[in-house]
Amino acid sequence: MARIVMKFGGATLASSAHIFEVAKKAIHEKEKGHDVVIVTAAMASSANELTKMARDLSDEASKRELDVLRSTSSQLSSALVAIALQEEGYNAVSLTGWQAGVQTDAMYVNARIDYVDVSRLEEHLAQKQIVVVAGEQGIDHLQNITTLGKGGAETAAVAIAAALDAERVDIFTNVDGVYTADPNHVNGAQKLKEISYNEMLELSNLGTHILHPRAVELAKKFQIPVIIRSNEIDTVGTLLKEEVEMEKNLIVRGVAYESDVIRLTVGYDAYSDASLADIFTVLANHRINVDIIVQAIIDGLKPTVSFTILKEEFAEALRVLEESKLSLGFSFADFEVGLAKVSIIGSGMASNPGVAARMFDRLRHEDIPVKMVSTSEIKVSVVVPQDDMIHAANALHAEFNLEQALYM
Amino acid sequence: MARIVMKFGGATLASSAHIFEVAKKAIHEKEKGHDVVIVTAAMASSANELTKMARDLSDEASKRELDVLRSTSSQLSSALVAIALQEEGYNAVSLTGWQAGVQTDAMYVNARIDYVDVSRLEEHLAQKQIVVVAGEQGIDHLQNITTLGKGGAETAAVAIAAALDAERVDIFTNVDGVYTADPNHVNGAQKLKEISYNEMLELSNLGTHILHPRAVELAKKFQIPVIIRSNEIDTVGTLLKEEVEMEKNLIVRGVAYESDVIRLTVGYDAYSDASLADIFTVLANHRINVDIIVQAIIDGLKPTVSFTILKEEFAEALRVLEESKLSLGFSFADFEVGLAKVSIIGSGMASNPGVAARMFDRLRHEDIPVKMVSTSEIKVSVVVPQDDMIHAANALHAEFNLEQALYM
Repeated sequence: MARIVMKFGGATLASSAHIFEVAKKAIHEKEKGHDVVIVTAAMASSANELTKMARDLSDEASKRELDVLRSTSSQLSSALVAIALQEEGYNAVSLTGWQAGVQTDAMYVNARIDYVDVSRLEEHLAQKQIVVVAGEQGIDHLQNITTLGKGGAETAAVAIAAALDAERVDIFTNVDGVYTADPNHVNGAQKLKEISYNEMLELSNLGTHILHPRAVELAKKFQIPVIIRSNEIDTVGTLLKEEVEMEKNLIVRGVAYESDVIRLTVGYDAYSDASLADIFTVLANHRINVDIIVQAIIDGLKPTVSFTILKEEFAEALRVLEESKLSLGFSFADFEVGLAKVSIIGSGMASNPGVAARMFDRLRHEDIPVKMVSTSEIKVSVVVPQDDMIHAANALHAEFNLEQALYM
Repeated sequence: MARIVMKFGGATLASSAHIFEVAKKAIHEKEKGHDVVIVTAAMASSANELTKMARDLSDEASKRELDVLRSTSSQLSSALVAIALQEEGYNAVSLTGWQAGVQTDAMYVNARIDYVDVSRLEEHLAQKQIVVVAGEQGIDHLQNITTLGKGGAETAAVAIAAALDAERVDIFTNVDGVYTADPNHVNGAQKLKEISYNEMLELSNLGTHILHPRAVELAKKFQIPVIIRSNEIDTVGTLLKEEVEMEKNLIVRGVAYESDVIRLTVGYDAYSDASLADIFTVLANHRINVDIIVQAIIDGLKPTVSFTILKEEFAEALRVLEESKLSLGFSFADFEVGLAKVSIIGSGMASNPGVAARMFDRLRHEDIPVKMVSTSEIKVSVVVPQDDMIHAANALHAEFNLEQALYM
């Protein structure tokens, strides 16, 4: 007997039929003798409706109240799943974030989990109940309701699994696993049997929106195996774990890309380490995700720093920079839109020099201009014009023979 | 500076425009320097939708999960009102039932308030915030979410007012006060300036659905003045308090009626006090409201007991009786539908004998058959055919000269 945490996304909860499907999957595990905890995301339709309601009242509704509103959405889905389980004859109980002991910081709309007090969860499991947790929410130290922002439900699922010492987390989503690249746009993309946390971290950071990096990080930290699987078809999925058996020692294991990237450039009259740190501190304090950072200090030119952010955070980033212009001490800010990021990922890269060079060479060969570059031990990212994104992804997928990955 | 609790019903929260209207009313009191606590009911549309969602999954969804579902509705309205207040430039915060300290018993769907721990409410008021409480919910001693059933939000409003030692509760509703009878159906019905708790208790028990008797009882117990007033027009409303100034010493102060009454009759082979108590205990345990009870023990006939219940509780009452038939020991059960209850209410009645006789006389004169009778110190109720209900109400309104009540 093991403990399994199963996370279901908004699309898997879209109708009564879907909800019974979710119940069936949970019952399948329960019947094997496992303790089962389900974590539900918000139902997509209800979340949108709530946002509209708030927007009708105010363009700048307070984030605290938005969380009170939005948390009703996963509370709702958790109760509905519990009702479906009961209808199937199983003992089930729904818990809100605070009831499930999901303790967070006080950053409304985008809260981080501090810890999970599983005492109540343990009580229900001891009573052989299937527990359904409203996944996108928690409570701060002053007992205010918080929501967890993007990837909240899957992050909560991993956090709960860690706190419960669960055997694994199953993430049910609208894809049946992790692929070497997006099969809708890249020819010959293959599903991976396994992928390491580090590779997945790069992949999820790089725009493969299957599992949020927060969840991957947490899974890595607590070494919780995670399976990405389809809600619709019953296939094996992709197992996410620490070390991957490399049947074929491919250097690159995946190509990822992300559109709607914006490059912001900030210039200074004189170079100062302090001000540079400050700018990213200010942006981080506003939870604006800065991605690739390139700093240029060239003799005779004013020092500049360029970084990429996502389109949806652009307005907020501009606002923050404008507000802090004086204290940050920069003299000008500039931006470029219509960009995309394309990346290659693979643990084998670290021990294989020349991968980046091969990537740049191929892109030049394809006449795709590279605007920015960023590298880590296991990935290389380039910023290219958005119009070249799919072209670049296909070229790189072919360049590194990923069509031969065949269920690695 | 005083403390005011303002309760808004579902109809007053139906749209963004309505919600801003609610905010305006609260701001009006705030600007006078008062501490303001708003208590919101569920938005009608959302409550119905939630019930439908549950019903799509199960005909017998567990009451615990129904409460998790339904509580989202007033949580939602409280957040929206807080957002509207903030948009108007006021410091406001929404609280769920458990955050507001509304502690209840564990009777899901129909929970009773045990006490209100106002410590958090006091903190927010001390910070000069307008506090918006989700009114139809609380939490039981095991930290499960409960909802308060019918009249929940107004009962919560009165309970919170009592615990906060508030000056008064304003109940904003779709009528502008309490009338001697329903002005839509009874000629010459007059609005009352004041009404005593006891009279209101009889009125609200008797189908004038302005304020639930639970709320009136609580207001009486803690001597909290309550004003029933219109959400739409700015009039004085009716003040509910302990003693009413009787400018005109009318014996009867109001005529109330209620349709869709069902008479259930249960017969026994032999008389037994115990079984009689049992039947009402069983019904009460299922929170089925039994109203008029008439017991007939006539020599030579089998003992019977008749009682009235509302149509909506009929199915449940039959189910409960059927289930408990053996233990309750009755030999047959019978029912009559298509009935209504008509009542006259007035504190002056106690010191004026012959009021009931005058009522029966008038009904006989109008050819309206009386099926059951029930009396208290300050009211007389009769059960009549539903088709005669409005006719009876008009006749009694005229009989006791209530068209002269003229804003008593």
